[in-house]
This record gives sequence, C-alpha cells and structure tokens, in this order.
Amino acid sequence: MRELLEAVAAGECSPAEAEAKLNGYVTEEAGRFDAARDTRRGIPEAILAEGKTPEQVASLATTALETTGRALVTRLEDTHFAALEERLEETVPDAAVDRRGATLLATAADHDRPALEATVAIVTAGTVDGPVADEAALICVDAGLAVDRIDDVGVAALTRLIDQVERLRAADVAIVAAGREGALPTVVAGLIDTPVIGVPVSSGYGHGGDGEAALAGMLQSCTVLSVVNVDAGFVAGAQATLIARAIDGARTSGS
Amino acid sequence: MRELLEAVAAGECSPAEAEAKLNGYVTEEAGRFDAARDTRRGIPEAILAEGKTPEQVASLATTALETTGRALVTRLEDTHFAALEERLEETVPDAAVDRRGATLLATAADHDRPALEATVAIVTAGTVDGPVADEAALICVDAGLAVDRIDDVGVAALTRLIDQVERLRAADVAIVAAGREGALPTVVAGLIDTPVIGVPVSSGYGHGGDGEAALAGMLQSCTVLSVVNVDAGFVAGAQATLIARAIDGARTSGS
Amino acid sequence: MRELLEAVAAGECSPAEAEAKLNGYVTEEAGRFDAARDTRRGIPEAILAEGKTPEQVASLATTALETTGRALVTRLEDTHFAALEERLEETVPDAAVDRRGATLLATAADHDRPALEATVAIVTAGTVDGPVADEAALICVDAGLAVDRIDDVGVAALTRLIDQVERLRAADVAIVAAGREGALPTVVAGLIDTPVIGVPVSSGYGHGGDGEAALAGMLQSCTVLSVVNVDAGFVAGAQATLIARAIDGARTSGS
Amino acid sequence: MRELLEAVAAGECSPAEAEAKLNGYVTEEAGRFDAARDTRRGIPEAILAEGKTPEQVASLATTALETTGRALVTRLEDTHFAALEERLEETVPDAAVDRRGATLLATAADHDRPALEATVAIVTAGTVDGPVADEAALICVDAGLAVDRIDDVGVAALTRLIDQVERLRAADVAIVAAGREGALPTVVAGLIDTPVIGVPVSSGYGHGGDGEAALAGMLQSCTVLSVVNVDAGFVAGAQATLIARAIDGARTSGS
Amino acid sequence: MRELLEAVAAGECSPAEAEAKLNGYVTEEAGRFDAARDTRRGIPEAILAEGKTPEQVASLATTALETTGRALVTRLEDTHFAALEERLEETVPDAAVDRRGATLLATAADHDRPALEATVAIVTAGTVDGPVADEAALICVDAGLAVDRIDDVGVAALTRLIDQVERLRAADVAIVAAGREGALPTVVAGLIDTPVIGVPVSSGYGHGGDGEAALAGMLQSCTVLSVVNVDAGFVAGAQATLIARAIDGARTSGS
Amino acid sequence: MRELLEAVAAGECSPAEAEAKLNGYVTEEAGRFDAARDTRRGIPEAILAEGKTPEQVASLATTALETTGRALVTRLEDTHFAALEERLEETVPDAAVDRRGATLLATAADHDRPALEATVAIVTAGTVDGPVADEAALICVDAGLAVDRIDDVGVAALTRLIDQVERLRAADVAIVAAGREGALPTVVAGLIDTPVIGVPVSSGYGHGGDGEAALAGMLQSCTVLSVVNVDAGFVAGAQATLIARAIDGARTSGS
Amino acid sequence: MRELLEAVAAGECSPAEAEAKLNGYVTEEAGRFDAARDTRRGIPEAILAEGKTPEQVASLATTALETTGRALVTRLEDTHFAALEERLEETVPDAAVDRRGATLLATAADHDRPALEATVAIVTAGTVDGPVADEAALICVDAGLAVDRIDDVGVAALTRLIDQVERLRAADVAIVAAGREGALPTVVAGLIDTPVIGVPVSSGYGHGGDGEAALAGMLQSCTVLSVVNVDAGFVAGAQATLIARAIDGARTSGS
Amino acid sequence: MRELLEAVAAGECSPAEAEAKLNGYVTEEAGRFDAARDTRRGIPEAILAEGKTPEQVASLATTALETTGRALVTRLEDTHFAALEERLEETVPDAAVDRRGATLLATAADHDRPALEATVAIVTAGTVDGPVADEAALICVDAGLAVDRIDDVGVAALTRLIDQVERLRAADVAIVAAGREGALPTVVAGLIDTPVIGVPVSSGYGHGGDGEAALAGMLQSCTVLSVVNVDAGFVAGAQATLIARAIDGARTSGS
Repeated sequence: MRELLEAVAAGECSPAEAEAKLNGYVTEEAGRFDAARDTRRGIPEAILAEGKTPEQVASLATTALETTGRALVTRLEDTHFAALEERLEETVPDAAVDRRGATLLATAADHDRPALEATVAIVTAGTVDGPVADEAALICVDAGLAVDRIDDVGVAALTRLIDQVERLRAADVAIVAAGREGALPTVVAGLIDTPVIGVPVSSGYGHGGDGEAALAGMLQSCTVLSVVNVDAGFVAGAQATLIARAIDGARTSGS
Repeated sequence: MRELLEAVAAGECSPAEAEAKLNGYVTEEAGRFDAARDTRRGIPEAILAEGKTPEQVASLATTALETTGRALVTRLEDTHFAALEERLEETVPDAAVDRRGATLLATAADHDRPALEATVAIVTAGTVDGPVADEAALICVDAGLAVDRIDDVGVAALTRLIDQVERLRAADVAIVAAGREGALPTVVAGLIDTPVIGVPVSSGYGHGGDGEAALAGMLQSCTVLSVVNVDAGFVAGAQATLIARAIDGARTSGS
Repeated sequence: MRELLEAVAAGECSPAEAEAKLNGYVTEEAGRFDAARDTRRGIPEAILAEGKTPEQVASLATTALETTGRALVTRLEDTHFAALEERLEETVPDAAVDRRGATLLATAADHDRPALEATVAIVTAGTVDGPVADEAALICVDAGLAVDRIDDVGVAALTRLIDQVERLRAADVAIVAAGREGALPTVVAGLIDTPVIGVPVSSGYGHGGDGEAALAGMLQSCTVLSVVNVDAGFVAGAQATLIARAIDGARTSGS
Repeated sequence: MRELLEAVAAGECSPAEAEAKLNGYVTEEAGRFDAARDTRRGIPEAILAEGKTPEQVASLATTALETTGRALVTRLEDTHFAALEERLEETVPDAAVDRRGATLLATAADHDRPALEATVAIVTAGTVDGPVADEAALICVDAGLAVDRIDDVGVAALTRLIDQVERLRAADVAIVAAGREGALPTVVAGLIDTPVIGVPVSSGYGHGGDGEAALAGMLQSCTVLSVVNVDAGFVAGAQATLIARAIDGARTSGS
Repeated sequence: MRELLEAVAAGECSPAEAEAKLNGYVTEEAGRFDAARDTRRGIPEAILAEGKTPEQVASLATTALETTGRALVTRLEDTHFAALEERLEETVPDAAVDRRGATLLATAADHDRPALEATVAIVTAGTVDGPVADEAALICVDAGLAVDRIDDVGVAALTRLIDQVERLRAADVAIVAAGREGALPTVVAGLIDTPVIGVPVSSGYGHGGDGEAALAGMLQSCTVLSVVNVDAGFVAGAQATLIARAIDGARTSGS
Repeated sequence: MRELLEAVAAGECSPAEAEAKLNGYVTEEAGRFDAARDTRRGIPEAILAEGKTPEQVASLATTALETTGRALVTRLEDTHFAALEERLEETVPDAAVDRRGATLLATAADHDRPALEATVAIVTAGTVDGPVADEAALICVDAGLAVDRIDDVGVAALTRLIDQVERLRAADVAIVAAGREGALPTVVAGLIDTPVIGVPVSSGYGHGGDGEAALAGMLQSCTVLSVVNVDAGFVAGAQATLIARAIDGARTSGS
Repeated sequence: MRELLEAVAAGECSPAEAEAKLNGYVTEEAGRFDAARDTRRGIPEAILAEGKTPEQVASLATTALETTGRALVTRLEDTHFAALEERLEETVPDAAVDRRGATLLATAADHDRPALEATVAIVTAGTVDGPVADEAALICVDAGLAVDRIDDVGVAALTRLIDQVERLRAADVAIVAAGREGALPTVVAGLIDTPVIGVPVSSGYGHGGDGEAALAGMLQSCTVLSVVNVDAGFVAGAQATLIARAIDGARTSGS
Repeated sequence: MRELLEAVAAGECSPAEAEAKLNGYVTEEAGRFDAARDTRRGIPEAILAEGKTPEQVASLATTALETTGRALVTRLEDTHFAALEERLEETVPDAAVDRRGATLLATAADHDRPALEATVAIVTAGTVDGPVADEAALICVDAGLAVDRIDDVGVAALTRLIDQVERLRAADVAIVAAGREGALPTVVAGLIDTPVIGVPVSSGYGHGGDGEAALAGMLQSCTVLSVVNVDAGFVAGAQATLIARAIDGARTSGS
C-alpha cells in the first residue's frame, strides 16, 4: 500500500485509481463506481445513464476508464453522449468510442482487451429489437468474444430464419431478442443445441405490450431457454460472456 | 299458429317444440334454451355443462334435440354424460351420440345435416390442446363442414409442421390451438393465406400460465390472426363455421 | 434472373425492385421491407410509423411503393406525414395518397388494384373509435373490397344501431370497434349471421381503461366473436380481407 | 334500563335481547351480532355463512331472529341449512323460512314487516346470474319492497329485453346482474330513467373470467350506472332498499 | 313536423335544433351530439373534452347549448376553455358559464332550470379530491338539486367528520370522493342511512396508486355502498341526480 | 466444546441440543431447524406447518423445544396438531401447550420466559381476523410481552372503536388486523401516537379480495403505518416484539 | 380563548396561528393545513408538492412555519423550491432551510427542536435510492433524532454491507431503502436485532419495475420486516420516529 | 431402412423403436413421444405427469425407455409412480429407477450414460425449494454431469452461505432455487464468476406469493442472472446441461 500511495504522491496514479485498488470502488459526487466488480465477477459494472444527469454520466464513465481501462454506458441519450464526448476529449482524448444505439463502449488506448476463442450469436426478430441487441453485443465485444449478429429473422417468415441455421449452430451461445409475441427464441432453441438466452423487447401495444407477452411466452417456452428481463440486453450479454468465457477457458486449458 | 296448436293437440308436436316455434325459446326448470339462436345466428346454442347438475344438462339437451334436431354440450364431466345417456335412452333412443373429450354432439335420427363444400383445418401444438380442438371440431361437424385435424405440430419441432403445409393450404379456414407460449398460430399464419383463428389453451404453470401467455402472445402476433378467449373452442369453431359457410354459400351460388 | 439483372443494368428496374423480386425483401438503413409478404400471405406488410424517425418512414414507404405498387403506413404523426409527402414528391410524384387519421395508403399511378365482389362493414360505437376504424378501412380499400362504414351506433342508444341492421346484414364480414365497456360487437353479433371481428379501442380511464375492459368483454362475449388486440385496426382489416377475399374467390370461381 | 333488567329477571326478555337493546350488539362464541345495525343504517346485518361452521351460523341466526325478528343468511351451503333448520325447530319453531339458492331469510311469526310503496326490478342476463339476484331479492323482500324479477334477457337476444321495457320503466330502481362481458346493465340503463345498480357475476372462464370483465365493463359503461363488487347481491339489494325506502318515505310523507 | 320545418324556414329554429328534435341527435364534423339523451335518460350527455381539439369541444358545446339549453363539459383544459369562451361570445353571448376545476356548465339565458326538492351531499377526504367532486356537483346543479359540499373530512382526523354528521343526515343522497386508501365512503356509510355513492380518486403513488386501492377498498366495503369508476365524478353526480329526482318526484306527487 | 461433548456423552444434553449449540442449527430428515435465530435476531424461528407432513411438524417442534425451550408452530391443521400432541406426550410430556386457532406455542416446563415491561395492543375489525391476530399474539406472549386484545371494532360502527381509545393509547405498540377494505389500521393510527403495524387479512371476495384491497389500502394510508404481508400475523407479532423489547430495554436500563 | 383573540387583535399572533390553535387546522385557498396533526400523532403533516402549483406549496409551507415552527415539503421540484424560497424571504426570512433531493425542511429561527436520545440508521442499496432516503431522513432530523446514513451497500457486493454491521447494530431502528429486487432489507434484518422498516424504491425497468418487485420481495421476506409503500420515505421516517421516540421516552423516564 | 424393417420382422427391434428411428417420434394412444429430441437438442424430452393418467404416464415412460434408453418423468404423484413401477416390472424389469420428490429417472440396464468433465452446483434457500432442485438435478445426472447439491443457505443467515463459497466457485455453472423474496440467486451471483441460473419457487402466500415475487426479483436482480419460470427445475437443469456440456466439449477437445 505504501507503494501505491507513493505513486499517488508522485502523480503516477490518480487518487481515483488508488482508491479503486485499495477499496475496490471509487466514490464521487455522482455516485460510487464499483471498479472491483470486474475482478469479482468477470463483468465490468455498466453505467446506467437513464435517470442520471449528463455530468454524472460523464464523471462516472471517466472514472471507469481511468480505473478499469474501459467504460460501458447503457440507455444513454444524446445529451449524455455530448457531455461524455466533451469530457473524454479533455481527460482521455485517445480513448476509442464505439456507440451503438443507446449503448456506448469507450476503451483506453492502452487497454489490453482479451481475445477469446468463443463466439456469441446475437439474433433479432425485427428492426425494433436492434438497440437491445446492440446493448448485449457491446458487452461481448468488450469481453473479447466474437459476435455474429443475425438480424430480421422473425417467425412470420420462417425461411429467413432457416437460412441461418448453420451460423446459429456455429456459435457457442446464442442471445435471441424479440418483442411482441416473443416466439423467436423458442423457434431458435428448437433448431440448435447450444444454450439460448431469450431477451424480451418492449415493443408492441395493447394487451401484453411493453414486452410482457414476450417475457411470459419465453418463460412458458416448450423448449429449453433461460431468460432475462424485458430490454435487459446488458444482462443477456453478460450472462453469455460468462458462459463463453468458461468455454474459452476450457478450450485453452484443455490438453 | 292455429295449425301449430292443432298439431300439439294432436300430439304431433311436443309443447316444447311448439313453444320454440312460437317464442324462439323454451323455458324449463333447468333454465331457458334458446332454440331460435340457430335461425338468428346460424349457430345453435351450446349447453355449457360446467356449473350445472347432471339433471339440468340432461333436460336441456333433450329439449335441444327435440326442438332443433341436435344438442351440443360442452365442458361436460362423466356424471353429466351418464345422466344424459340415460335420459336420451328413455326419450330419444335413436339419437346418434358423438362424444370427444368434454364435448358431445347428439343428433336426432331424422335430423338433416347440411353438407357444405368447405373445409376447416383444426391444428394443435400438443396432446394437451386436444380437448379444446375437440370442442371446436364438433361445432364444425354439426354444421356440415369437412374437418381436417392436424395434431402435435408444435413449434419446438418445426419440421413436423412444415410437413403439413399442403394440408393447411387446402383448407378454407384454420383454427390453431396452442398453450404455453402459444406461438403456433403465428407460425401457421406466416405460412398460409387463409384466415387463421388462434385459440389459447390453459396449459402451462408459473408466470403466464393458465393460457395467459398464449393469449397475450396471439394478440401481439406479428402476423394476421384473430383470437378467441382461453379454451374457447366453441367460439373458435362457431366463428370458423360462419366463415366457411359464407364461402360455401358463395361457391354454391356463384355462376 | 439474368433478365432481371439486365433490366437493372438498363435502368428499367431499380435495384430495390430487383432485390425484392430475388430475395422477397429489401434491406435499407431504415430496416428491411418484406416485399414478398403480399405474395406469401395476401396482405402487404404495413409500415408502423410509431417509434421510427420521419426519414425512416419516408424511406420504407418509398421502397414499398416501388416494389409492390403501394405503401400502407400506420400510427403516423404529422412529422412522419410531412417527410413522407416531401419524399414522394421527389421520387413518386404521381402516387395517390389517401390519409385517414393516423393511417395512410399511397398508391402508384400504375398500380392495378383488384376489384373484389365482397363488402366489409366497419362499425364504430363513437367518435373516439374513428381512427382505429380508419386503419382497418384502408387495408380493405387497398385490397379492393367495398367498405361500408357505420358510425356512432353505441349501445347506450340502441335504436341507432337497430336502424342499421339491414346494412349490417348485407355485408360479408363485419369489423366492430368499441372502447370503454366494448359491448357493441356482442350486440351486433347477436343481430346478424356473418362473421364479426371485435376491435377493442383504448378509450376510457380508471379501472379497465386503455381498452382492457373492452378486450376482456369481447373475449367473454356470450355470442360468437373473434377478437384482435387493443387498437389493432390493421389486424382486423387484414383478417377481414382474408375472409372477404376467400368469399370473393368462391363467388367468382363458383359455377 | 331497570325495566329491561326486570324483564330479563322475569324471563320476558332473553339475555341476548337485553344485551342487544343495551349494547347494540350481542356477543357469542360464534362472534358478535350487530343488532343495532338495523337502527343505525336501516339495513339488518347479514350473516355470511361462508367460512363459518354450521353451528356458528345456526347460533348467529337464532340470535338475529330473537333480537331483530328476522335473520338473513348469505352464501350458505346445505350443511349450514340443515344445522340452521334443526336449531330453529328447537328454538323458534314458528319462524317462516324463505330460502332462494344460497340465501335464506327467516322471519319470526310476530315480526311486523313494513309494507313500502316502492318496487325494485331485479334483472338477470342468464341462468347463472340467478343466485346473485336471489341474494339481492331477499334483502328487498325483507325490507317490505315489491320485487319484480325479470330473468334471461341477456344482450345476445335483444328482443327479449325490449319486450320488458315497460316493466323496467315501472320500477323505482333496478338491479341488473350479469356475468361474462356484463353488458346488460349498460343496455338497460340506456332504456330507462330510473337508477340502475349493476352487479357483476363471477361467471366466465379465461381472460376476464370470475366477473372481472363484467366489473370492468360496468365501471367503464358509457351510460349512468353505479356498481357493487362481483357477486355482491346483498350490497346491491341493500343499496336499492335505501333508495326505494327514501322514495317511499317521500311518497307517504308528501302532501 | 311541418310546423318545425316552417320554423326553420322562418329562422325561428336553427337547423341543429330541428335535427335534434327530429332525430334526437345532431351530426357535426366534431362528432355527433346526443340531444335526446336528456329526454331518454333524464341526464344530458356530457362532452368529454379529453382527446378532443379545442375547436371540437367549442363546436359540440355550442350545439348542446342551442339544442338543450345547456352544455356540460368535463375534463377540459385551459385551451379548451379559451376556444369555448370565444365561440360562446360569438354565438351565445348571454350564456351563463360556471367553471369549477376541469368541469364547465354553460346555461342559455332562457333555459328553464327545474327546482327540485332534494339535496345531495358531496363529500371529499382532501384537497386532491376537489376536482372530482366539482364534476359531480355541476351535474347536480344543472338538474336543479341543492348541493351541500362538505370538504376535507378524511378519516385520519375523525373528529372533523363527526362534526358534520347532521349535515350528512339531512341530505337525500351522498356522494363521497376519496383517493389513496379510499376509506371515507365506508366510514360515512356507517354513520347515515341514506344511499352513499363512492367515487375513488386517482391520487396516491406506488402500489394501489391511481385510485386502484380506493376502488378496490370501496368495492370491498363492509358497509353498503355503490361505486363508480375512478375519477368518474360525472357518473356519480348523474346517478345521484336520478335518485334525488325520484325522491323529488315522490315528494311532489305524494298526497 | 469439550465440556459440551462430555455432557452429551453423559446423557445430560441431547445430540440435537449439542448440535444447536455448536452449529446454530439442527439438521433432521424433516429439514433444518435454526436454533440460533433466537440469539441472532431475538425472535425464535417459527415452524410453518403448511406444506409439511404431520410427522415433519412433530419432529421439528420437538427439536425446537429441546434446543430453545419452546416451539412456535403456525398454520397448523388438526392432523398436525394430533401428531404433535402425541409426539410431545412421548418426549416432552410436561410441556405446556397454548393453541389458538391455527397457531401453537409449546413451552418446556423449565423454560424461563422473560417478563417484559411493555404492552402490545392487538386489534381486529371482525371475527374473520381472529386467527391472524392469534398468530401475532402468541409470538408476543412467548417473548414475555403483555398482550391487550381488542376485537370487533371495525369501522362500520365507529363508536365501538372510539370506546377503546384509552386502551389503545396505553399500549406501547399496536397491531391492527383487518380484511376487506382494511380501513381499521388507518383509523386507529389517526387516534393514537404509538407505532401501528397493519396486517391485511385474506377475507373478502370479488375484486380486491384475498386481502389485496386491504394491503393496497394500508400501503396507501393517509396516516403513518407500516405493513406486513396478507395474513402475516407472525411477522407483525415479531416486529412488534422487536419494538416493544427495545422500549423495555430502554425502560429497565434508564436511570 | 379570549386571551388568544386579544393576542390576534394586538397583532401578537397571526390569524392563521389563532385558527390553528382553536380549530387544529388552517384553511387557505391552497387547501387546509392540519396544524394539530403534530399534537395528535406526534408527526407534523407533510406538504406533498406533487400536483400542487408553486404558489400553493409556498403558501401552505409558510402557514406550516407560522403555526408549527417548521415546514416539511416532499416531492418538490425546482419551480416549487423557487417559489417557496422567494416567499420565505418575504415572510420568514430567518427560517433555516435544509433541502435534500426532493425534500425540504424549513425551520423557524425560534423553533425549539427536541433532542432525543435515539438513533435511526438509514441505509441505501445504491445511488438511485438516495432521494427516498433523504425524505425519510429529514422527518427524523425534524423530530430530533440522530440519523446515521449508510449508503451504497447493495447485496451484489456483500462485503461492503458486512463492514457496516456495527453501525447498524448501534442504531435503535433501521430504515432500509432498496429498488430493483429489494433484497437489502432482508439481508440487513438477518444481521441485526433492531426493528427494520423496508422502503421499496421505484427503480428498475421491465417486469417488476417501478418498485413492484422490491415491494413484493419485502412483503415475502423470510426475515422480520415491516414495509411501507414504494418511495414512501416520509412514512418510513415517521414510523421510525414513533418507534425511536417511544424508546427515548422509556430511556429518559426509566429509573 | 430395409435393415431396420428386417430387424422388426425378426423381433430384434420393437415397432416403437423402429418408428422412433424412422420418424423421430412414436405415436401412442397416450400421445406422441419425441424420441428425436435428444439428437436434435441434446436434451431428452421429459414426460410431464401432471394432467395425465397413471396409465398414460406408464405407457409414455416405457416407450421412452425402449427408444432412448431412459425416461425422465416430472411432477409425478404416487399414483403415477405406482402405475409406472408396475409397468416397468412387466416390461423393463432391469431398469434402474431414481426417484427424487416428484421427479423420476429410469435408466435401462444397457444404457450408456456419458461421463462429462463438468460440475453443476444446485443450491437451495430452504426445505421447500428441495423438489424443484431435485427436478433440476436428475436432468443433470442423466446427462452425465457431476452434481454438487448445497442446501438451506437462505439469505436470512448469511454465514451459512458464505461457508460454501469455495464449493460454489468450484462448479462450472450454478442453479439457485429460491422462493418467497428469491434473493439467494442475486447474492450467490455476487460471490462467484460462473454463470448462475435462477429458479423461482412457488412458495410464499399473500402478495407476491406463488413465486411471483421471486421471479420478479430475479428478473430485477442487480447482478448477472438468467432465469427460468416458477418451479421450472427441468428447464434450469437442461439449460445448465447445455452449458456444462459445451464446457466439457471444449475441455476434452482442447489441445
């Protein structure tokens, strides 16, 4: 610990980094960022932008970048993005930023992303499922997985889906996002023998709208699925990462 | 009317038949049977056995037979069946009885069933959907439609379903019964261009059980479906009958 | 296929049209338009404006017009309409535009609309049900059906409804839209012997508001109805079209 | 009070009667009977048999008879009835017993029932609504109102209802019981200008079953209705009694 | 009828008035106003401003004024009010306007309001219940009833309520509006023997908020209440009017 | 530990008691009894009989008695009671048994119950709330609190409640159990300044039945209440015990 | 009373203060402020800003300050705050203002806050729970309790929580606020033997969002908890105050 | 195919086995058994006993044994078990039967169970979660996985759980079953970095009972979890099997 404090004194290590190393988390006005989650759980803490001010998001993301080498922000709007972009330019100008829909992954130039031997298929039924799939995808990208994205294969036109069976079978784990009646994960899981994680999407109006029909349908599925909450792309991506990483671990340590 | 009353006096017409002809309904201790519904709506009134005593069911069914030539009983249990059988033996011994699951269709020997040029496909996802499909089927049979029953083609094993596409396409209208996630009507409606009526079935436990997930899913379907209530085989069958009869009418009156 | 590609090369066929003919769908930045749905299902794919940007809607509608001869847009707002109008002026200036409430049907000048021998009655309980009925009506119009619109015949004033029984009976199929307690489809279905499709409308506040009471009431109806989801005018219109087209087919092919 | 206690001492007044007069309620092992409710509210307390043992019901009913001259028991089963009958034979053998369905009204021979100049119409949609209407009717009978019962006039066959409009208009207040979609009170209230109280009935299965669709529909009614809970015949009858009694009071005190 | 048309020709009667007298309703672009409802039901049709444009509301209200002598508008916002005020100034400048919260009653100068011998107590638990009570009050005022408004007597401070028992007992019927737990109608109904109509109010947040706890509590009340939907002040006022008018009728016709 | 094991060897301590002292819990075929909960939390673990066989209940209760000096069993039926009684006779014949409704407290003869200087008022609205109040009461009795039970003071008859205000004010904490609309805790909390814990009771039928209206109403209360789940008498009693014990601790340690 | 009126006449006492002393409440255009609640219940009435105009809030808060020496405003927004600040500057310029999130406590300079010997621990799972905890905290502060705030100890990182067990044990009562799955109060209550009050927080999206999962989970807790409604920080703080004050009372009056 | 038919002719292969090999499924009166599911999906089809007669279960299980070498029956009762036992004795007397709670795994003597290098931890919060965990465990056993069962580590006593962290970390995947508030999977997932599958259990009464609180809580979890439906032990076990098998595959094929 002495060493660390000396590094802080010498300006080689920011106080936030030091706090993260000592405590496992960093406290700021904007809240507390759990830098140790990555070590503890294998998944970095995501920063949920929804309900936070642009400044809070910018501040937490910068802390994340400084202490863990990357920052994952979900459910962000343009105002969050603007504030974050500006802050990064000031503090971590060489960070790489990958924004997809409402999700953003910023990576420090010197961050050493692992390269895993494992693939996640991320499948959507229609256009409206895209942002949820994006959220899932960036978590997997950050973890070093290969992501194979298969879009617009909803069950109303089965042939589109059947055309993709080989790609689906080639993946180690599949995330399937679908709204409205949410039948796609069931149909996919009937075609392949890898684990499938269903993500209900909050599309649809009227009875069973907001993803409730899709969630209930996935929980009732007559095939084998596990499920995450409505729109919970992050959780699906993180769970797929844990599975794929275990497979990668087995692959690379096998003999 | 004079004629009718003379027929009653002469014993050629039972008082119940006469009441039905005059009033359109017959009042008994067991309730009131709406004999005119057939004329008004093209669909005979069904007798819902659930919540009635065996004697009430037997009595209402006998009245139906005497006044309309047939009796359709739904949701009946063995005790209802026994009472009904016994009563029929006494009063209408030559009636033909067709019981499927919890549904029963009794037809008087001299009843002149129409023969329509129209076919209804009745499709089930699994064994548990059988009784609901039976309820739908007997209404169609009574109306003189051809019924093509296609069972056990749930979406977890798509190839079974795809094998039956030709039969599905050959029908004029399709009833598709499915429980749990209720995805089958959506998938069927994506494959054919005839009207599809979805019937949610009250299978499944946990969240979305009792047919609620299936109902919500069918209402949210990304294809074109109309839907009836959970387990409402009678309504599905009757709606299919109205559609098929209109097609038959057009066929036979076309030039 | 050679022929097609030569037509593209010659500028006689847009790449989108060619993609639609070859693949059955067209991929654009704004999403994928399913041009083959019309062939597969007899119902063109509708473009749901809700949740899309004005540019996405304009782009998808233009593609639809170019590949299928017409474009059906539902749940559009004025900003969508403005963008679409402007785009059409640039690209398909001779398209005819029929906007009713939040629904729009654009038809290319050279589109050959079929003329079917079949009528759909579209019935509303009150003013608030109008936009849902409009959505249903335009689908039927596009399909070439005759539409008989009967408005403001809610059950609180029965005589208004009873005055219209003859028109109701003259139609081949009826769509009945009603909010609040949603009793109108039940009462209509008790008066006629053609198929009735109930559409719950999201009017009403308090318990059972947002169309939930109307939906539950239609599912519980003591007559014969099939039902679509709350505000799902498109689905009701499309289902009515499938039924009416089958009747027309029988009529014109009968002998 | 001295007088009362002397009457007890002399055996002219039972201790229960005395307690009722002094306290307004009587405490027994089976619970506490609120004899003063009649005075306070104009409606005697009903004894809900459901969830009580036959002995408790018999005991409470006997107390009610002794202290208020009558006993109203709701939701009773045959075992309750048997115990009550036996107890009455022992203790109040000359009581008159009027049992309708699951409701029972016992009246002491010397009870002086009022005769009010007011009529309540009690209307049902179908057979299944009978017991709830019975519960409402007996409260009104006990209060001395004229009850006009109009049965089996559900909205699926409007002409039956329209035949009864004159009787409906002749009543001072109407109770309308209906299950499933519960549309009858709305249609009745559209035809008359007396107050209508809707009672949803717990019939129907599937979505909106157990009276929930009927309740929501009555609350959403586009006419003027007030509503009581599902199957709450007692409350409807008691509310109608309060209204009719006020009308009677005005009638008899008018000048 | 001749007479009427001559009056129109002579400009003594507007075409709208004539249509109202002949048809019972008036059709305008803004919808159809049911002028005959007053005759049929004893309650004029209210114009629900919510979901209508200011112009539609102004137009329907003017029609109502011209054909029935008054206009009742509910759930109006300031923009509706402004448009309505302006229109009235142009067309019916001598109309009297009584606006309370979101409800407005306009009365033509020559409208002959009845004066009934009957009083309605309108009771609120707290400030938030005021607008719903206002809605109920104006219907009663329009009908010619005396309204006794008793505010801020919620159950958290029982003594305030108990102080008002005499006023409550003096009324012919009571409307009690309460949000959150909605206990006030139950407590009031335990204190008086006149009919009580409970109106749940959409206050409260969290579980049971939006008036759902209040509605459920009133339906479960252990006293005698009838209930209208959440915030349905109009329905409560109209039902109270029907009751009070019947009492008035009995009073004035008694002998 | 040596000492303990020698006591076991000497037969002075049962193996179960020794396991409880060492591990804090005792494992049996019937499950694991958490003997240390008492120490950890100040509240002994209750044995929920529902869903267990009579033998399991008897076995767990005997273990509880042997290791903690008493056994608290909730939601037991007569078969559980019979098995328990028989087992106790064999193994702990001198235990004192206090059964109230579905709750039972058995106490070993040598158990040293504390005597606390604190009183809990336990209040019910009606007879049906009794068993839930019993469950709460026995926990308090076991903890050595004085229990003041105030029954049948529901809000439909306020004077009964107002008569008891002095007793309510004298208690240190109040538990108020009420079903149906659940208004009693709100009214009680408006009258006193000690903490009130509301317990919804699963009485009532129709909408809001099974205690849901009461729960929602208590959560929405316009006074200050905390709440436990429907029928959770044990939790209410335990929470009251924790509060009362803290007050007793302050009292006896004050200076 | 004479004395009071003379004080008013002399300008020593504002009319509002006098009204509060005489009636227990003060009536203003903005509503009625219940100044006597403090005396009656030991908890001052809070002013719920939500749904009120800035002027109404400013007016009610000033009245509260003048009559009870402090004003507690909950759920206020910046516009409310601005109006209140301005008004206070004019009327009570020396009031101390403590704003935390959406809650504000203003205290008159001469207000004599009690100093109680009792501590409340207020615990949050994460940043999003802060405002609800703030609401609870200010009530306790106002009552003179010591508040120990323990933040960001959610169950996903147990060690953070376990580090705080000593502080938790030192408090007399604990309020635990948590959203999403709401597990924190259960885990806290398993670690300490003081009363725990759970406050569900309306965070989380998808199924069980808006605090519903947290509420249900706390009600189902396998430890001993009492619960308040979602986001009801005020109620939790007030209940904790009642408990802590009773403990303080026992402490200071013990001997 | 010729070969197969000759084997049938020679009696070396039962017709059922032959049908299974040719069609992938076997049709019997009791329903259709999907023998090919194992090949297609890597998970054998389970036979859900609930809702089937003992004879149907016995028949389907025998077919499963004959065609796939084992039979997995879920949700069976004693009557199912008796019928099955008897049938097996007659037809497959050397089958090994492993019954745990309501789940049964029968294995033919010559069945070659795989031995995978992968471990599943199956964790329960309390006794009541046992049967659901049993259902999950037998699927894993059948698949050849090592199962490490960790029972009774609910969150009310954290130390029990913390004692087991090493075992939890040693597994490749964890299934965590919990009822009531369902917090255990969240706490477990916060402690380890392997994938966790949460299974809500239908324990608990009152609001959120029947597993609904547990399900909602797991979906809202602030850690990374995927979830299956309430009581869906089979699905959890099957999903864990797919994950563990992929890890095993990677292990054994790695180099």
